[in-house]
Order: sequence, then C-alpha cells, then structure tokens
Amino acid sequence: MLVVMESHATPHQIGAVVEAVRGMGLTPHPLPGATRTAIGITGNTGAVDPRALALLPGVFELIRVTKPFKLAGREMHPEDTVVLAGPTRIGPKTFTLICGPCSVENEEMILRTAEFLVQRGVKLMRAGAFKPRTSPYSFQGLGLDGLTILTKARQRTGIGIVTELMDTDNADAVEQAADVIQIGARNMQNFSLLKRVAKSKRPVLVKRGMAATLEELLMAAEYVMAGGNYEVVLCERGVRTFADHTRNTLDLSIIPPAKRLSHLPIIADPSHGTGNRDYVPSMALAALAAGADGLLLEVHPDPARAMSDGAQSLDYAMFDALLASLKRMADTVGVQIN
Amino acid sequence: MLVVMESHATPHQIGAVVEAVRGMGLTPHPLPGATRTAIGITGNTGAVDPRALALLPGVFELIRVTKPFKLAGREMHPEDTVVLAGPTRIGPKTFTLICGPCSVENEEMILRTAEFLVQRGVKLMRAGAFKPRTSPYSFQGLGLDGLTILTKARQRTGIGIVTELMDTDNADAVEQAADVIQIGARNMQNFSLLKRVAKSKRPVLVKRGMAATLEELLMAAEYVMAGGNYEVVLCERGVRTFADHTRNTLDLSIIPPAKRLSHLPIIADPSHGTGNRDYVPSMALAALAAGADGLLLEVHPDPARAMSDGAQSLDYAMFDALLASLKRMADTVGVQIN
Amino acid sequence: MLVVMESHATPHQIGAVVEAVRGMGLTPHPLPGATRTAIGITGNTGAVDPRALALLPGVFELIRVTKPFKLAGREMHPEDTVVLAGPTRIGPKTFTLICGPCSVENEEMILRTAEFLVQRGVKLMRAGAFKPRTSPYSFQGLGLDGLTILTKARQRTGIGIVTELMDTDNADAVEQAADVIQIGARNMQNFSLLKRVAKSKRPVLVKRGMAATLEELLMAAEYVMAGGNYEVVLCERGVRTFADHTRNTLDLSIIPPAKRLSHLPIIADPSHGTGNRDYVPSMALAALAAGADGLLLEVHPDPARAMSDGAQSLDYAMFDALLASLKRMADTVGVQIN
Amino acid sequence: MLVVMESHATPHQIGAVVEAVRGMGLTPHPLPGATRTAIGITGNTGAVDPRALALLPGVFELIRVTKPFKLAGREMHPEDTVVLAGPTRIGPKTFTLICGPCSVENEEMILRTAEFLVQRGVKLMRAGAFKPRTSPYSFQGLGLDGLTILTKARQRTGIGIVTELMDTDNADAVEQAADVIQIGARNMQNFSLLKRVAKSKRPVLVKRGMAATLEELLMAAEYVMAGGNYEVVLCERGVRTFADHTRNTLDLSIIPPAKRLSHLPIIADPSHGTGNRDYVPSMALAALAAGADGLLLEVHPDPARAMSDGAQSLDYAMFDALLASLKRMADTVGVQIN
Repeated sequence: MLVVMESHATPHQIGAVVEAVRGMGLTPHPLPGATRTAIGITGNTGAVDPRALALLPGVFELIRVTKPFKLAGREMHPEDTVVLAGPTRIGPKTFTLICGPCSVENEEMILRTAEFLVQRGVKLMRAGAFKPRTSPYSFQGLGLDGLTILTKARQRTGIGIVTELMDTDNADAVEQAADVIQIGARNMQNFSLLKRVAKSKRPVLVKRGMAATLEELLMAAEYVMAGGNYEVVLCERGVRTFADHTRNTLDLSIIPPAKRLSHLPIIADPSHGTGNRDYVPSMALAALAAGADGLLLEVHPDPARAMSDGAQSLDYAMFDALLASLKRMADTVGVQIN
Repeated sequence: MLVVMESHATPHQIGAVVEAVRGMGLTPHPLPGATRTAIGITGNTGAVDPRALALLPGVFELIRVTKPFKLAGREMHPEDTVVLAGPTRIGPKTFTLICGPCSVENEEMILRTAEFLVQRGVKLMRAGAFKPRTSPYSFQGLGLDGLTILTKARQRTGIGIVTELMDTDNADAVEQAADVIQIGARNMQNFSLLKRVAKSKRPVLVKRGMAATLEELLMAAEYVMAGGNYEVVLCERGVRTFADHTRNTLDLSIIPPAKRLSHLPIIADPSHGTGNRDYVPSMALAALAAGADGLLLEVHPDPARAMSDGAQSLDYAMFDALLASLKRMADTVGVQIN
Repeated sequence: MLVVMESHATPHQIGAVVEAVRGMGLTPHPLPGATRTAIGITGNTGAVDPRALALLPGVFELIRVTKPFKLAGREMHPEDTVVLAGPTRIGPKTFTLICGPCSVENEEMILRTAEFLVQRGVKLMRAGAFKPRTSPYSFQGLGLDGLTILTKARQRTGIGIVTELMDTDNADAVEQAADVIQIGARNMQNFSLLKRVAKSKRPVLVKRGMAATLEELLMAAEYVMAGGNYEVVLCERGVRTFADHTRNTLDLSIIPPAKRLSHLPIIADPSHGTGNRDYVPSMALAALAAGADGLLLEVHPDPARAMSDGAQSLDYAMFDALLASLKRMADTVGVQIN
Repeated sequence: MLVVMESHATPHQIGAVVEAVRGMGLTPHPLPGATRTAIGITGNTGAVDPRALALLPGVFELIRVTKPFKLAGREMHPEDTVVLAGPTRIGPKTFTLICGPCSVENEEMILRTAEFLVQRGVKLMRAGAFKPRTSPYSFQGLGLDGLTILTKARQRTGIGIVTELMDTDNADAVEQAADVIQIGARNMQNFSLLKRVAKSKRPVLVKRGMAATLEELLMAAEYVMAGGNYEVVLCERGVRTFADHTRNTLDLSIIPPAKRLSHLPIIADPSHGTGNRDYVPSMALAALAAGADGLLLEVHPDPARAMSDGAQSLDYAMFDALLASLKRMADTVGVQIN
C-alpha cells in the first residue's frame, strides 16, 4: 500500500499517518517528493486492512501495491498446473475441447452427440442439466433427470462430463455426474457456491463473470483453492461492453496476462462470447493462437431445433470443418488437440 | 420479433422463413421494403422461441420487439407498487432511508446505531451478517450470530431490518431476522436464490448486478414475482465502466426508465455506487432529485475502525448533515422522508 | 512513480533498477516488503518519462503516483474558477442554463427561441451551425450562414451564444459569433483543435468524450490552459457503457470528484446524456442536486419537426415546467439560477 | 423502422402514427399482435428521418431496421476490396505488416528501422511525425521535420509510409509524405478531417475510436468514401472497458462481423491494444487466426529509450521471433505474409 498525501499536507498530517501505520503494526516509509509526500507501507501479511487510512486528514489517495491472490498466483507456484479432468487432462502443451449442446434436451440427442464427439477424439462433453436462464418462463433444464442422462452417456461412451452447478442443494448430485463442475459466469462471485465446490473432489471450471476483472476471476479461483481444491480451470466467455456486434465481447487478451499472473489453465468459450455460430470458428482459432489451453464449444445435432442457444451452436458439419482447422493450427503452434 | 432479410435474399428464401414461422404456429407478415424485406411475426404468447430463425438462409438478423417481463412491467400493472417493509413502507410519495453499517461487527455497535437511527426517525437499518467478499481471507461476517444481534436490535428499538441472504442454506434464518431480504449485486442472477425468496413472505430488495441491463434487473424481479412474491424493491448501486473516479459508476439515469417500464419502487445506494464517503451526500441528493424512492446508506459509528467499507461510510455527524439536506429537498419535491 | 518488483527479483535486478532511476536524474527509494521490493521514485518534475523502467528484468509493474494535470488541478489553484461567458458568468453559487435547439435550422426559429429564453431569464443560448453527425448523409448544419443567424439573435436579444467549433478552418468565424466556444465530445482529444482554442479570447466549453476518464477530461482542459486560455468549463454529457435504457450513461458521479480535483466549473447535458426528453427533467434536477454549475439543455419550438435530436428536445411548455422545478430546488440548495 | 406501440395504445393513436408515416411520404404497415401493435415502415430511401415519430402519443419505442452505411457495406459491394498501399496492397489472401516506432524520433533510427524492415520483407513502415498525446507537456512529434525524415526513408529503401494526420492544416504535407494516411482513434469522428481525406488520392487507414461501435467505424469509412475516396482500411486497436489487465481491450471479435457487413480490409493493432509488448505476439497471432488482413505493430531499435510507447514496442529480436511464428501460421491458414 502506498499512501499519497495532498500536496498541501502539513508535516503534522504526515506524522499522523506515519503514526497510524505504526499503530497497525506495519512499517511506514515516508518518501518526500517534489510536489507531495508519499508513504510506503511494508510488513503487511494480509491480516490488516489499511484502507481506513484514506479517512485521515491530508490523505489524497491510497494505491494498492500487493496482489490479493496467493494460491492462484504464479509467484507462489511457478509451474503450470495440470488439471485431471475425467479421462483426460487440461494444461500445457495440450488444447482440450469441451463440446456439446447448451442443454440436456433428451437422452437421444445426448447419446448421439457423445458418440459423435468420441468418434472425433473429443474426451469431454458439456451439457447443462441445470440452466441459468434470464427469464423464469424459459426452459430451465431437465435437472436431476438431465444428470441421469449424462451419466448414461459417460457409461456408454467413456466421455467425460462437464456440467454446471447452480446451487449447493444439487452439489452432491452434480458431483456424482460430473468429471468437471462448471461454475457459470453469473455465479462467479456466488461465494457460498465457491466454498461448496472447494470441498469437492472434482475439478472446477470457473467462468469469468460478465464484469469481472482478471483479479476477481483469480480471487474466485482462490476461494476454491483456499478451501482445499486446487484443480481449477479458468474460462473466458465474453464480457459486457458497449460493443453490439457480438452478444458479449470475447476478451482473448486476458489469456497472456492470466498466464503471467497465474499457473492455472485458461480456456475460451467462443460460443457464448460471440453468440453467433458464424463467428465461432474464427474466434476458436484465435483463442488457440492466443495461447488458450482449450475451448468450450456449443455443438448440437440440429441447432435450428435447439431448446436454448441454437443460434450460437455449430452443427456436426461445421464442427468437423473447425476441428480440421484447429488440428492444422495446433501442429503449427506445437500443441496437441485433446 | 422482426426477421430482417438480406438485401439479396431470394423469394424462395423469404418463402422458407414465412413457412418456418407458420410451422411454429405464429403469423408471418412480410414487409417488402426498398432495399430488403422484413417479416413481422405476431401471435407469440411466449411459448415459442423463434430465435432459431436466424439460422435460415438469407436471414440478416432478428430484432426482438416484445419485452420479456410481464409481472414486473407497468403495462400489466399501471399503479405504483407499495412495498410493506416491517414498520414502514417503500413506494410513491415517500423517500425511505435504509441506513447502517456494512457488516454486523458486534452487538454494541449495532444497538448503538439502531438507537441513533431511530432517534433520527429512520425506520429501517441495513447491516450484513453474511458478507460477500472478493477475498476468501477477508472478514466474512458473523453469520447466524449476526442475525441474533440484529433481532435484538429490532426487539429493543423497533427498527426494521434489511439484511443480505447469500444462499438457500441460510434462507430460513435470514427470513426470520429480516423485514426485507436483500439480494446482493453479485447474486442478482443467482436464479436458485431468486426462486427461494420467491417463496418467502418477506419483501425482497434486489440490487442491480454490476453489468446488468435494466431489462435483466426487471427479469430478476420477475423471477421473484413469478414465484408468488410481489413485494420487490429494485436498487441501483453502480455498474462497471471504464470510469475510475468512483469505485463503480452510479447510474441514476436508470431511475426514470425503470419507473416508466415498471411499477416497482427503486432506490439508490450511493455508498457502494461511489465507494467514497465524500461523494455520498451529493449523490444521495441527486438520487432524491432524480425520483428514487429511497436510499441504502452506509453509516458507521467509527468508519476509521470499520471491519469493511469504512472509506464509504458516513459517520454520525455526516449523516446528520445529509439528513437535514435531504429533508429540505424532500419538502421541495413534495415527498416525505421516511 | 512506484516500481514494483517481482517477488523473486534478485538483488542484482533491484540494483539495476536503482541505477537506471539514478541515470534518469531521479532519486530511487527501495522499500523491501514482506513478499517483494518496491522502489519509490522522487524528484521528477515532468521532464522524464520513467515508463521504460517496465522493460527492465524483474520488474512486475509500474504504478503512477503523480497526477499529470497542473493548471487544471485544484492543488495549484484552490479557489473555484469563475468563467465570464458573454452576458453572464459560470461558477460557484450560480446554476447557469444554456438552452436552445440542437441545430440552427433557420432564422425564424432561432430568433423565436432567443426571445423565449430571454423572457425566461436565460442568458446563454446553445445552437449548432456546424454539426458533427454520425452519417455523411445527415443534415450537417448551416455553417457560416448559421453563425450569421446566431449573431443576429445576439444583437436583437442580448443573449449570449454557445456554439460548437469542429475544425481550425472555421475558428475565426466561430470565435466572432460565439461567447463560448464549444468543443464536442467527439473532439475532446482533437489536440490540434484544443491548441487552437487555447489561443482564443473566448471561454471554452469542453464536453467529456464518450470514453474519457476524468483525468483525460482535465488533460483536455490542460491543453487549453497550457496555451494561455484559462477560461474553461467542463461538461458531462454521458459515456458509453453496456446500459441501453438511455442513449448514453449520464455519469453525474463525476461531479464531486471533478470538483475535488479541479477548480474549473462543470455542467451537465441531460439531453445528450439520456437521448429522451421524458428523462431530461429528472436528470436536470439530479445534476443540480449533485453540485453541477449548470446545464446544457436542448429546447426546441417544435421538437417533432426538428432537423436533429428532436426526441431529446424539450418543447417550451416542458421547459417552463422544468424551470419552475429548478428554481424551487435552487432556492433549497442555495444557488442562483442564471 | 418499426414503431412499437404501447400495449394500451388506442386505435386513434395507432391511426395517428399511420397518418404521420404517410405524411412523410412513407408506407405504414400495421401489425396487430397479441399484446400490442407494431407498425412497419417501408419506402424510406434515407431522405426522411422518422425518429420524431417517437414523440407521438401511444408510441412505446422505435426500432431501426436499416443499416445506415451504403458504400462501406458488403450488400452493395459483395467483393472484398483491395487497397493499393504504396509498394504493396492490403486485402484478401494477404496479411500485411505495418511496422515501426511510435514516433519519428530522429533520422538515424528511422533509416535504421526502415532498412531492418525491408530486409525482413516488410513493405510498409509506420511512424508518427504528428503525435496525439494526452498531455500537452509530452513530446508532440517532430512535425514537418518528421515527414522529411520519412520521405528520406522511403527514397532510400523503397518502404511505403503510413503516418498519422491530425488536422487539415497539415493535410497537404502528410499526403505528400504518406503512402497511407492514418486517422487515429481519437479522430475517428473528427468529421472535418474525414471530409478532407475523402478528397485525397491516398488510401486512408481509419482506427476504431475507443468507444466506437462497428456501425460507427463503418460510418467513418462511409464519410471518406462518400467524398470520393474508396481506398479505406479499418483498424481495431482496442476499446475502453472496465478490464484493467491490458491498456485497452483488443476486440478481435469485431473482425468476423466487420467482414460480414463490409468489403473493406480490417487490420489489428496489438501494440496499442495491449500496451504491453509481452502480450503483443500472442495477440498478433490471434489476429491472424481470427481473419485480420494485417497488423499495425510497434517495433523500435531500443524500446527502453523510446520517446513514446516504449513499453509496448517490440525490439528487433522479438520482432524476428514473432515474424517467424506469423509465417508458419500464415502458411497454415493459407495467406501470404506481406
């Protein structure tokens, strides 16, 4: 923390800040500059919140220096984390595809999609049994029946299951059905839910909230890790901006700084990011080029009849074309499609 | 819904869209224009999702016409709603103050604050027993003990309690302690939580999410109302933008359109909105002038020692000064401070 | 400037930064902390740009401490500035109305509006002769003929003229016609234009750019002041956000920090801010309550026939109603409508 | 245009809108729906602005259907445009690199950089003689002397010059020195400047404004094209959002919709987009993968001593490494590095 004093701050005011810092058990370092004094603070191991210093007379502003994440940060853990995700793993040198329909609609389409994906070498299927919908009148997912269908797909095809958990009430059921538990963008700061999955043995995929900074995304991961679950995958899925040419603004530029600050894998979701299946292939390739560790992709046997998100779902032929492009590019950049 | 065709769309493509609309049980109205054809769709009572029409050849874009909210909308309910909130009410012709510390820190400060507020005529106290904190290492609130303290404050002083519910696990306990259940900004689209409070007998205060549109805020209210609880208060508390002169950007300009589109009361939270107590009085007065139905205000006996959000909390003297200004302005605009 | 080192930075790397700072003629102050070292830099009077320090090995990030504005800042000039604007002044204890149509459409409507405004005690009229329009096919303003009409209105009624300058080519002409030169939001960082009006004897009204921070707005004012023109009025007119309930998001919460950081007057434009005349009165009153020094208001004799921005223009009756409300509120908050 | 009536609109109000549309010379098409009537309008060739219909009683909102761009739109010009840019061309099947320092600092560094680039096969050099700087106290560029240096570099090495024009005063001089005239992000809606370059024989590179929608970017191009200059290149360079992990948010997802709506080439500027040279290579590769037609890249012989933007400039070794990666990826996606 750095306390910046007003340029007209009196020596008495500066002294009072110095005293207050000492009173917190921290060490003040006054730096008299050309126009004003700043006071560096060292010795804080996190137990003290020095933000109330802003209320002292003569203080212009506080500037935070230390990053608040620890377990999610690369400084404490320089090696890239590899997350074990059912039949496969997510992490360096691989590019993991997690594909499937938005929702579990019925058994037939899930089994058919699982078989299609396995045939293409995809090892993880996404599909929601519990659906967070903006409207209470929209299809809310099949719930527990959806989980049963997913379990059957796993048993039949060996594909791993990535599915969303929306509340602690269904945590046990989702845990049993899922190889990876997904926390949706709207729940990224549902801290009760994060604390619950922190106690799970399943890896957790945390989607970035629509207005979340990188630091907040890492703090969501920190909640899971602080509770004892170190298997966390980050996911960029588009943020809210003024731009209206896509449904959300897919912020691929979070990937390099996420990799700099954290050791956790990060994947991208171009389906939700763009909201338009015509734009998905370009952004999927861009995510790979930008250094993402994988993709969350909506693939549906018949998008025009999808119960949700049809407009952003690839059909099988579009997926096959994209997969071929991804494979060529993966060879070029030296990673393995997974 | 309006389907806009590409300018080069063929008669065959237009015909296929018309057929598809009919196939959904809806009525198509082709409108041949100077450069392109648009196809209006009528007859949709909400059961059909025509968005998949976007996937048909020759379609340029879909434009949604109907608003998705019903119960929260003013068209279905032209009269302003009055919400009964413990010892008082929130709604037209009154300006309701909901004041208190960010967190329940201990019994002494809560009782003291409750007495102070009651003495000033304030009828509702806010204070969090469960605290959504960005960091797992920050103070997370006193939990059930905090609720016990709030209940004692209510018993002693008669003040009504507004407190946050973070998860369904604690719903019964919060319901018992609270006169109004608060849903925080981070949980505005925690649909499981919304469905739970929809079954409550307590009114619900829904804070706008940091990236929520007005429509999404109204749809969060719709979730509560669709479940049978019609007592909903909206709250603007600042959104995320590029602007960095305040902690969030308090969007007071949501108040007139919210009142146009909805019959629900809407209040403002200038404490979270600005994050700086020096800016709170100006924005509190502006909220009153803009037509808000009340305020959520952080007031603390000793902000410099607050366990959370001290920098945005008014002390008692600042609150008294603001209250005097609010009263003068309320007289001018013809509402009653409550 | 504060240089934050990585937690694993070596003593050698820290030493290299210290040396580099000295090599720039500045003074380094190493602050060894619990997890990392930070290096404060003092002695910079603005001539040196130490940002390239970010490129040195072991540097985690740079944090800027000093504000870049000088002349526009309150620290160098604690007293509020009063700007002389034709027949009146803009500044503390007054609330100045600048009203009129979006564009100069013809002589009749300008003379009529000027007379109407003068009758109501308004001393400044706004109207554009040069119009920045998103489309090249839209009405672009009457140009020099428009200025002639404005000059006639001033001669006949004594009203002061506020009108926009879009380029240096027309600077002389606008200067002659205008009592206050307006720089539009789209030109807030048109630095050539700012340098030109810095040489003018007319006061300058600088509208905040659609994505401008408060600091950038003050730096635009600084351009004008650094060139020798100290008469600058700031104007909040709405910024771009994801919110779609208003045309722009009118950020009234910039007013208190602008007044804290700067001595310049700041006014608000609720017409452009909301884009909807039904919302203008609420936001006009809120701007007054928030501490603004005045308003830029679109008023048109017949909004339904306006050549631009009719939907956000008040007609005369709506203006009269708003004026009455503003007067009552101004009495309450102790300022004079001007 | 679609006029959406309130659900309680009377037949009389609907009739009045229908009459008003006819009075504008347009054709109304009433569409009575389940909850409300909408009125489609056809026949508008652009001469009439029907937005004032919003002021009629019973109107809920207007929804615009037609896109305002014509010349820049793909519907009027299905073929991709190829822009002739000095010694090369920008357009389909090629990926054009425009590299060089932020500013022309002196002759030596420009000549050295030009030679370096030519040796690597780069055909266009970027460097600013006129620099838009946020602070009036920062280095503002060498001006006309800078243009002379650029001309010398072109004469010596044959490299094409891309340089920024900030105002009409210097238009002739920049035109003479430049093979491509750059319009900076801050001037994207400086319409006087756009009208001036519309009369130039040089192609124009228009950078997206920091808060510009795709439609506004295309309308900026439309200004240039409507004036007679059809050689326009679009450039994504990052927009303003709440995200703070990069200097701006590089919005690569604009590329597919830009290509859908327009025939103009679009390139990306990862240097300004990220503000951090460590992130530039990832985002450069992602831009290529996303379908961009080229890059604007800051390359400097000694970034640590750059007079501006050193932190985001690649040094020669970093550029060589990136070029090798770009070449491999270009082979994969089937375009030619240019």
